[in-house]
Amino acid sequence: MPLAGEDRVKLQSLQEWIALDLTALEAEVDRLLQSDDPMVQEICDHLAKGKGKRFRPTLLMLTAKHGSQSEPDAVFVAACIEIVHLATLVHDDFIDSAETRRGNATVNVKWGPAAALIMGDWLYSKVFALLCARGLFDAMRIVGMTTHQMSVAEMMQLEFHRKLDLSEEDYLTVIQRKTGSLIEASCELGARLHPDLQAHAPAFAEYGRKVGLAFQITDDILDYRGEDQRLGKPVGGDWREGRITLPFIAARRNAPRQEQLELERAVQLADDPADLWSDVHAFVQKHRGVEFAYERAHHYVELARQAISGVPVNPQQQILSTAAEYVLGRLH
Amino acid sequence: MPLAGEDRVKLQSLQEWIALDLTALEAEVDRLLQSDDPMVQEICDHLAKGKGKRFRPTLLMLTAKHGSQSEPDAVFVAACIEIVHLATLVHDDFIDSAETRRGNATVNVKWGPAAALIMGDWLYSKVFALLCARGLFDAMRIVGMTTHQMSVAEMMQLEFHRKLDLSEEDYLTVIQRKTGSLIEASCELGARLHPDLQAHAPAFAEYGRKVGLAFQITDDILDYRGEDQRLGKPVGGDWREGRITLPFIAARRNAPRQEQLELERAVQLADDPADLWSDVHAFVQKHRGVEFAYERAHHYVELARQAISGVPVNPQQQILSTAAEYVLGRLH
Repeated sequence: MPLAGEDRVKLQSLQEWIALDLTALEAEVDRLLQSDDPMVQEICDHLAKGKGKRFRPTLLMLTAKHGSQSEPDAVFVAACIEIVHLATLVHDDFIDSAETRRGNATVNVKWGPAAALIMGDWLYSKVFALLCARGLFDAMRIVGMTTHQMSVAEMMQLEFHRKLDLSEEDYLTVIQRKTGSLIEASCELGARLHPDLQAHAPAFAEYGRKVGLAFQITDDILDYRGEDQRLGKPVGGDWREGRITLPFIAARRNAPRQEQLELERAVQLADDPADLWSDVHAFVQKHRGVEFAYERAHHYVELARQAISGVPVNPQQQILSTAAEYVLGRLH
Repeated sequence: MPLAGEDRVKLQSLQEWIALDLTALEAEVDRLLQSDDPMVQEICDHLAKGKGKRFRPTLLMLTAKHGSQSEPDAVFVAACIEIVHLATLVHDDFIDSAETRRGNATVNVKWGPAAALIMGDWLYSKVFALLCARGLFDAMRIVGMTTHQMSVAEMMQLEFHRKLDLSEEDYLTVIQRKTGSLIEASCELGARLHPDLQAHAPAFAEYGRKVGLAFQITDDILDYRGEDQRLGKPVGGDWREGRITLPFIAARRNAPRQEQLELERAVQLADDPADLWSDVHAFVQKHRGVEFAYERAHHYVELARQAISGVPVNPQQQILSTAAEYVLGRLH
């Protein structure tokens, strides 16, 4: 692995810079997860336990920050982005029939698939209703387009289920829409909420898009790295659920035709192709799929940094360049 | 049944008044059901086949109409309301594990539950994205709040599953949020899009709310009326899926304590309470549940008419009074 010598940038060290905002964010997230309905509240409380790393709101608030704290609306919009992210996880877990998420039972397992569907709808619609009620129509427009892109990506993932010859191009389209779009929205909205960065919003959007691609590729790499379970997800989950990702795509491209065919045949003959994980893992290792994927992730981090290299405003330009490195640092 | 002597108002006769708008609506709905993604498009084409009666957009366009045709945005917003309605049907059919809808296979049956979930998300988010892109933030705000209310209602329905002692009050809360809210939104938005009716938007919202209650109650009555299958849904579906509705609530209230207990015991002892439909049907008939529900529906239609009785603008005041009667006319 070509990782040696690079510094791992911890998300926490970036988050120290916006410590006050993050405290405010947690309060906003808690406030968004309130309902008069007892069953909704029960599920909200459960979801609140499985707290994520707040990567997307962190990027938004890092971008929006000026002076001692962020724009007043930035924290609220950041919380909305986190709730949208949570909604996608609830729906994703249903689609994947996942049993655990962040160490807790998923909504579909604990309350059933209907509750998971409704809960996702509840979270999405709450964000839309509150963004509009607060008159944040710019944010509403961007979040609306983003969630729409994400739904198309979900459908593409169904279409590409266990499609062994998935092209890198189609893979990139899916991850751009599924993961890149919400990170892009976070950075674009952060810039729009900063008085001196509004004109540079397209550059920050481009930055977020590329960070998002790198982020998803590293996620997909971690799923092929047997030694690493830090994400709280079992390794090999993507293959088992039929998701073809970049390490596999690259390995398959590198493999001789004969080995490609052998794997295809094994998949066709298997009672359940999910059981072939150890073969697939060995195949990806042998044909250096992870190494290729890492190079691509590195490439997108570079493109992310370039996207904002011309932005004259500091410290955003500098701190977001560091934030992009965090994405690669997750692999250490 | 106290229906004799009243005129049945056909939806079509109301729709003649907005014939041009309805043609434009169909074109807008078709345009909204377009996607670059082949699987999404396939499902859209399937959904387009099961065309509904366009009740909600009809109310919106009847309200918004002035001069020879509706406000330019009214047709677009009406199409958005119809797509939101379609999204709720797709998610509802998944929740109910329904097999057919408007004579066609449901999305969950034909493409699987994951596709049904994603397709609903796709439809909702498309509406949000397009309303924002067009700058219709007032509509966006109202539609956002409405979809949120609808999601709470869905969760309440799960909570109240086969709850034999469901109160009329809780029943009304559910149907207000689930059905009333979108019809309310249609009428409020129609008024807001009419230059002379903007100031009366609250009255039209109230009208829609009450029409919505009457509409859902008549729907629930039809589910207890063995002779009537015009809705394309099998009779008894609500009971089988565990939905307690007004005819049952009223009959149970009218029944002597002994008969209430007998029914409760039968439900507790049944392998599958769904099989008790013929007993439940007889129980509701005996204790005049349908008659009570009809009286309530009639009451809400009266309240709807009163809500706009003070609106000086015609023909809206008159034609919408007639539209409210259509809801009862469905029972003839």
